[in-house]
Amino acid sequence: MAPGNDGYGLVRDASLVVVDGHITWIGPSGDRPEHYTDLEEKPCGGRLITPALIDCHTHIVYGGTRAREFEMRLNGASYEDVSRAGGGIVSTVSATRNQSEVDLLHAALVRADALIAQGVSAIEIKSGYGLDYDTELKMLRVARKIGEQRPVRVITTFLGAHAVPDGMDADVYIDTVCIPALETAHAEGLVDMVDGFCEGIAFSATQIERVFEKAQALGLPVKLHSDQLSNIGGTPLATQFGALSVDHVEYATDADAKAMAQAGSTAVLLPGAFYTLHETQKPPVQAFRDHHVPMAVATDWNPGSSPLGSLLLAMNMACTLFGLTPAEALAGTTCHAARALGLDDCGVIATGKRADLAIWNIEEPGELAYGIGINPLHTRVFGGVMER
Amino acid sequence: MAPGNDGYGLVRDASLVVVDGHITWIGPSGDRPEHYTDLEEKPCGGRLITPALIDCHTHIVYGGTRAREFEMRLNGASYEDVSRAGGGIVSTVSATRNQSEVDLLHAALVRADALIAQGVSAIEIKSGYGLDYDTELKMLRVARKIGEQRPVRVITTFLGAHAVPDGMDADVYIDTVCIPALETAHAEGLVDMVDGFCEGIAFSATQIERVFEKAQALGLPVKLHSDQLSNIGGTPLATQFGALSVDHVEYATDADAKAMAQAGSTAVLLPGAFYTLHETQKPPVQAFRDHHVPMAVATDWNPGSSPLGSLLLAMNMACTLFGLTPAEALAGTTCHAARALGLDDCGVIATGKRADLAIWNIEEPGELAYGIGINPLHTRVFGGVMER
Ligand SMILES: [Zn+2]
Ligand SMILES: [Zn+2]
Repeated sequence: MAPGNDGYGLVRDASLVVVDGHITWIGPSGDRPEHYTDLEEKPCGGRLITPALIDCHTHIVYGGTRAREFEMRLNGASYEDVSRAGGGIVSTVSATRNQSEVDLLHAALVRADALIAQGVSAIEIKSGYGLDYDTELKMLRVARKIGEQRPVRVITTFLGAHAVPDGMDADVYIDTVCIPALETAHAEGLVDMVDGFCEGIAFSATQIERVFEKAQALGLPVKLHSDQLSNIGGTPLATQFGALSVDHVEYATDADAKAMAQAGSTAVLLPGAFYTLHETQKPPVQAFRDHHVPMAVATDWNPGSSPLGSLLLAMNMACTLFGLTPAEALAGTTCHAARALGLDDCGVIATGKRADLAIWNIEEPGELAYGIGINPLHTRVFGGVMER
Repeated sequence: MAPGNDGYGLVRDASLVVVDGHITWIGPSGDRPEHYTDLEEKPCGGRLITPALIDCHTHIVYGGTRAREFEMRLNGASYEDVSRAGGGIVSTVSATRNQSEVDLLHAALVRADALIAQGVSAIEIKSGYGLDYDTELKMLRVARKIGEQRPVRVITTFLGAHAVPDGMDADVYIDTVCIPALETAHAEGLVDMVDGFCEGIAFSATQIERVFEKAQALGLPVKLHSDQLSNIGGTPLATQFGALSVDHVEYATDADAKAMAQAGSTAVLLPGAFYTLHETQKPPVQAFRDHHVPMAVATDWNPGSSPLGSLLLAMNMACTLFGLTPAEALAGTTCHAARALGLDDCGVIATGKRADLAIWNIEEPGELAYGIGINPLHTRVFGGVMER
């Protein structure tokens, strides 16, 4: 998956040399330099090795479940019925506020473990179900703990501007809750990036702009949920702030794609939400190709619009629902996902990079996106440590 | 899931008594009769217990992979290009013919294990990638061995009438290969049921009829792949033969549903193929409800049109793509799946039934269909044996 390679850049009959958790050499076994011969050898049985996968957009810290709401809707309830029964994001916010840090962590670790079992080495995790000062901080602390308790890198994203809390004015929320919470979270070292949800049902570009200005002042990179259900100008704003990524982007225009290319922003495609919400407007994949906007693919794992617990399945959906090629889907969960998180030490198999690898029981890389609900992982390698 | 219950028939704070691999009592713990108190108790921690799942339509014995073809198509190749490159069902037939029984078994066991790990206790497995006398028998022998080597019940289906082999006349194939292979397979005890593919690209109703007449003469129940891509009269034929199930049925009419109800046939819904083939015609779910046709849900796991390795995901797809309720989806993989296989000793939790159970790390049964690519299995119980 290294840059400059067409497609996968597959090396057959390869050797890979790892020293101190980093890749120091990769190439055909026959070309391996002599001085590496005294290292311990671990035969991989001719299996396929890819960079470990990276899930660059998740909301896996949350309380409760939304299964009942899913069931109500399939039994004919309208969104209003569901809302009157206490469903929707409000129910997740209240469950997340009410759960202890220990309980939130316990549930989130189960989700992180499921991703790790699929060869994932890095997970981005957002706040955004607190919508109050204390709970936003609590979510980020839980996210940090996942990275301490499991062999996985966690990248935390402050998403205070996720939804307008019940009964509060959006501007008042941004200025008196969201921005102060961001400042504290940053001061406590809990924030790697800042995100927002720019949509008619959430926040306007002007409101997000104030959050991004604060992020910029704090030296934090930004990204944005934009153009998911409509286009209200989120993407031009995000690119003005040099966003690492713009996410969802179903309604992005050709001009948006061009702006993303110029800003160096990655498009993060989230087919799980598209599938769950029965959306029909697909992201402008061809425009992203034409303008050389890198495309990442992520689960968007969340209890409402995307209870999708498999990054491999997200890859299949990106192909089947959005028409990505299997090579684009794999780049989307490796090198382009790394880029969406501002990481330059992983996502490719190349000298100097971290030895975060996935070893698969398959022969061709295209099999990863082809299988549906199938996990062919043989072994994960995290920081050079082979896990079985 | 027992008959007569609305929805799930959930019993809260329940005890379940198992003796000699069968359920001898089920009810609220407080009502448990005294004389069961000397049995060994296994606390389940308040977890949800359902009947073990049943995958009632699979093609998991096959050689090769069709990943390259998936990739070619996403890179812009037409079906003709793929066909010229040796793709399509022909490639699976030739790989299945060329692989040894040992290699076929090895690959199929990986697939069976993936289903077992999701709480599946019974798997239907079809032949149909041989399309010659020897390979059809070889596939059925491999299917039988899966049931011997793993704690799972395997129900074998002879599907000689799956596709017309290259360069052969369909009628000649039916009369000189398919029917003789069925007779031998039956004589060797390899066949539990007989299936066919009634479709413009496969066999006509008249051709299938000859296979079904032979099945009837041999005392074997029948089922049919029907109305998947068009309606050419497969379902009336299947119901005349009292088919256990009619499968796919996207193009079934109200009259077909009525005939299925009268014949006692189950509709087997296969959303994985619908999803993979980008179909838009959904099965007539409301007609099946109106006429009280039981609906089963299965993976249709096969390398071409449905490389779907998760029955839980099939349940989610049945809800999201076809509008089934989560309760219908669970009935579709338990009691109705049993019915589609002619099994009356499993698929429900009731006195006298086999203790084939799934114990889940969830609180509400609706969570099973709600999660996408998530496996919340805690423990499987097979014939009364708790697996961990
Ligand atoms: Zn999101
Ligand atoms: Zn089939």
